[in-house]
Amino acid sequence: MYRDRIRLKSLWGKVVPAEEAAFLIKDGMTVGMSGFTRAGDAKAVPLALAERAASEKLKITLMTGASLGNDVDRILTEAGVLSRRLPFQADPVLRKAINRGEVMFVDQHLSETVELLRSRQMGPVDVAVIEACAITENGGIVPTTSIGNSATFAILAEKIIIELNLTQPLDLEGMHDVYIPTRRPFREPIPVVTAESRAGLPYIPIDPSKIAAIVVTRKQDSSASILPPDDETNAIAGHLIEFLGREVRQGRMGRSLAPLQAGIGTIANAVLHGLIDGPFHDLTMYSEVLQDSTFELFDAGKLNFASGSSITLSAGKYAEVLPKIGSYKGRLLLRPQEISNHPEVIRRLGVIGINTALECDIYGNVNSTHVNGTQMMNGIGGSGDFARNSHLAIFVTKSLAKSGAISSVVPMVTHVDHNEHDVDVLVTEAGLADLRGLAPRERAETIIRNCVHPSYRELAADYHRRALQRGGHTPHLLEEAFAWHSRFQQTGSMMPTPLAAE
Amino acid sequence: MYRDRIRLKSLWGKVVPAEEAAFLIKDGMTVGMSGFTRAGDAKAVPLALAERAASEKLKITLMTGASLGNDVDRILTEAGVLSRRLPFQADPVLRKAINRGEVMFVDQHLSETVELLRSRQMGPVDVAVIEACAITENGGIVPTTSIGNSATFAILAEKIIIELNLTQPLDLEGMHDVYIPTRRPFREPIPVVTAESRAGLPYIPIDPSKIAAIVVTRKQDSSASILPPDDETNAIAGHLIEFLGREVRQGRMGRSLAPLQAGIGTIANAVLHGLIDGPFHDLTMYSEVLQDSTFELFDAGKLNFASGSSITLSAGKYAEVLPKIGSYKGRLLLRPQEISNHPEVIRRLGVIGINTALECDIYGNVNSTHVNGTQMMNGIGGSGDFARNSHLAIFVTKSLAKSGAISSVVPMVTHVDHNEHDVDVLVTEAGLADLRGLAPRERAETIIRNCVHPSYRELAADYHRRALQRGGHTPHLLEEAFAWHSRFQQTGSMMPTPLAAE
Repeated sequence: MYRDRIRLKSLWGKVVPAEEAAFLIKDGMTVGMSGFTRAGDAKAVPLALAERAASEKLKITLMTGASLGNDVDRILTEAGVLSRRLPFQADPVLRKAINRGEVMFVDQHLSETVELLRSRQMGPVDVAVIEACAITENGGIVPTTSIGNSATFAILAEKIIIELNLTQPLDLEGMHDVYIPTRRPFREPIPVVTAESRAGLPYIPIDPSKIAAIVVTRKQDSSASILPPDDETNAIAGHLIEFLGREVRQGRMGRSLAPLQAGIGTIANAVLHGLIDGPFHDLTMYSEVLQDSTFELFDAGKLNFASGSSITLSAGKYAEVLPKIGSYKGRLLLRPQEISNHPEVIRRLGVIGINTALECDIYGNVNSTHVNGTQMMNGIGGSGDFARNSHLAIFVTKSLAKSGAISSVVPMVTHVDHNEHDVDVLVTEAGLADLRGLAPRERAETIIRNCVHPSYRELAADYHRRALQRGGHTPHLLEEAFAWHSRFQQTGSMMPTPLAAE
Repeated sequence: MYRDRIRLKSLWGKVVPAEEAAFLIKDGMTVGMSGFTRAGDAKAVPLALAERAASEKLKITLMTGASLGNDVDRILTEAGVLSRRLPFQADPVLRKAINRGEVMFVDQHLSETVELLRSRQMGPVDVAVIEACAITENGGIVPTTSIGNSATFAILAEKIIIELNLTQPLDLEGMHDVYIPTRRPFREPIPVVTAESRAGLPYIPIDPSKIAAIVVTRKQDSSASILPPDDETNAIAGHLIEFLGREVRQGRMGRSLAPLQAGIGTIANAVLHGLIDGPFHDLTMYSEVLQDSTFELFDAGKLNFASGSSITLSAGKYAEVLPKIGSYKGRLLLRPQEISNHPEVIRRLGVIGINTALECDIYGNVNSTHVNGTQMMNGIGGSGDFARNSHLAIFVTKSLAKSGAISSVVPMVTHVDHNEHDVDVLVTEAGLADLRGLAPRERAETIIRNCVHPSYRELAADYHRRALQRGGHTPHLLEEAFAWHSRFQQTGSMMPTPLAAE
């Protein structure tokens, strides 16, 4: 029975089928849905919306925390429901529609979306659709495996639809810390001074009369498709752990390091996984996504506390961890993404931020989003929130892609998400470049020597040598800065074709 | 007599000539000097250093707050004293040496330098040279017209040289608020919740036994060379004031707006000047440099309070304001640049940040530093600290440079200091582009229509149209993204030469 999860009995009458709830969403509306890196997303109402779009004009602006699971972005795209989408996505079908210019995608720092809504620079939010595992006696919403932007969506929305998911364990209750900054011009400091700090409520406080419908669901979160560590990700982890060891030996931090953040994806997950065998202990995380590695570090006795905005696991880990999630209580907090990614808190705690680069250049500028400077992959996500404010901003990437046809380190990145001011350390399987305190010419030498794959090293060094002859603080040959990219487009490889012998 | 300014009498014996004090600085040392945008810089010891370098090998790493006056950077460069310089400079001779690769310049966000020193990621600081208007009974240093990084330099340095400047009015005492964040991992929130918040001490607290020498000086700060408003800067100010008026009418802020920040330079100063006749009142500033316009706004009764890290004025304003600086007491605070530019405080207060772009592109990326992507001008300064965390991040530039040979709005900037995620509003004399909530294709349309000079508008629109045919979230033609820059280098103008008529 689901009614024991709706503790404010006056809301029992609000339970309706998804199709009926979806009728609260009209053409042209702005809708805020729960969901952050596939976790805790709304799963029934968006599908009902897609069905309705087959028979009526229905275009919405969809805001979420971050990416959605359960193919929701694909289905909404195919149904033509999305006119505008923000602040992040990771769906191949939606991505194509964005790159065709059919869906207007607003790629935002994940901490900033709700600031813009709250100050009425965007919005208003017409309807919020929030997955919950329970509704409290006073009508508060207990989120599930993510908070994302759900709290502010619900607080600002005119109407709220709850998706009450019976497969989400009630043990999640108590693991959320919903703190909303006070309004400007009277905003107080955010009272988070360690990863463990509890600053707010264990539920989203709203006026329960705004709850217009409750839909009962039983669909699980989609699992993350994380590739297992390989030789290269292990090498990256090895370089990084060696570097962190040096930092400890030089007295820059203790053996519990500083609160760790790791971006989503295989490489960052592998790096954290590598800490299991490292010499560090009593670690903490102040991150956005808690992935498989978080629970492996817990279970290995290496990690004391993890703060994030979502729990996103592989299928196997999900089946193992979710049923016993209560056993992690007291060691784990989920926060609104505004707080998990807040510049104020990240700078205060001195986080070590580890994020993945799509490509980087010889001066240490990082492209996180655009293939060839034009085609959007997923979005900047939280990488900017963390890189700009971290004690150590680390970017990781394999030095090659497409079996060596692409060098991830290029003369000039085709799109800049993080510039040389923000990138402290760059790591590929080839090695690590410590860029702190270096001028661009020195950065280039270090990156070319340590991070470029040997097969591209001389090519990169040659570019830099010739650029140096022209001079400048950041020497470049503008007319061939993107020549590697052009060559790839023309020949299928960034590597020049050797001249035919003779 | 200077002795009444050295209230800790045991320090009287430390007074020495500049030449003798300069001997504390040895070859290879790292030296932190006061000085922020020409204000409150060390004026005697660096010159003595330059003289010494004529007869002995003397190379140092020089760190300051920001730019220096009194030709100190030129003189040190010509004497060959600088091996490394950070985090900002604005001297034509030093700039050339940087661009020739003779001085390694580390271009940093102005809020970050002392974080790197404090966490021992840079440094150590061997000697600090700090201009003071007095030394307190307990040996505290009372800074002059800037704080910059002086407090942390002095706190971390092994030895301190004080330049006691008798021309700096004693009325400055009480106008400084020296707050140093507590050490990680036990860092507390910064207790600055309004522009007016007083969080620290009116002097730099140090162990007086570290004061190794006191040099008495009588040289004034260099004045700023700010051009008077012209038709174009007036037009920029007009567009911006109209925009702010709309924000007020739409209920996004009140008539006292939000705390204002304006970057250094003619355009930003003109914009603030324009507020004198605007409909706003009870304004506050939370900025880094307080320029002529700050005092004009005070005197016009428009400004209630100004917080900054330095006071940098034109020659006329300097002569007028400095003698009566005491009359502004209670309405003006100088803070360490770490605090004036701190992401935590800027985000909390919801600052309106107005900074100057060197060039911007049709998607709203901004280059603040590199001419042609290679030649350093001054440095990123505080523009990144403010743009990333502001409630409204505004960039201003004239649409043309070099009498129309250069369009300041180009297809793709050659260096990215601020990317589309951070730039909310772009203003040229041609018009204003409100980019909030727009996807890149929409940003481009708005910028081309509103900000590009009419003489380049069709050229920019043509680039964008052809790029759109290739598709992508951010459509570009990589092979001609820098064609305007190449044309300028080849022909002296970004404008294509019209085909000779038949």
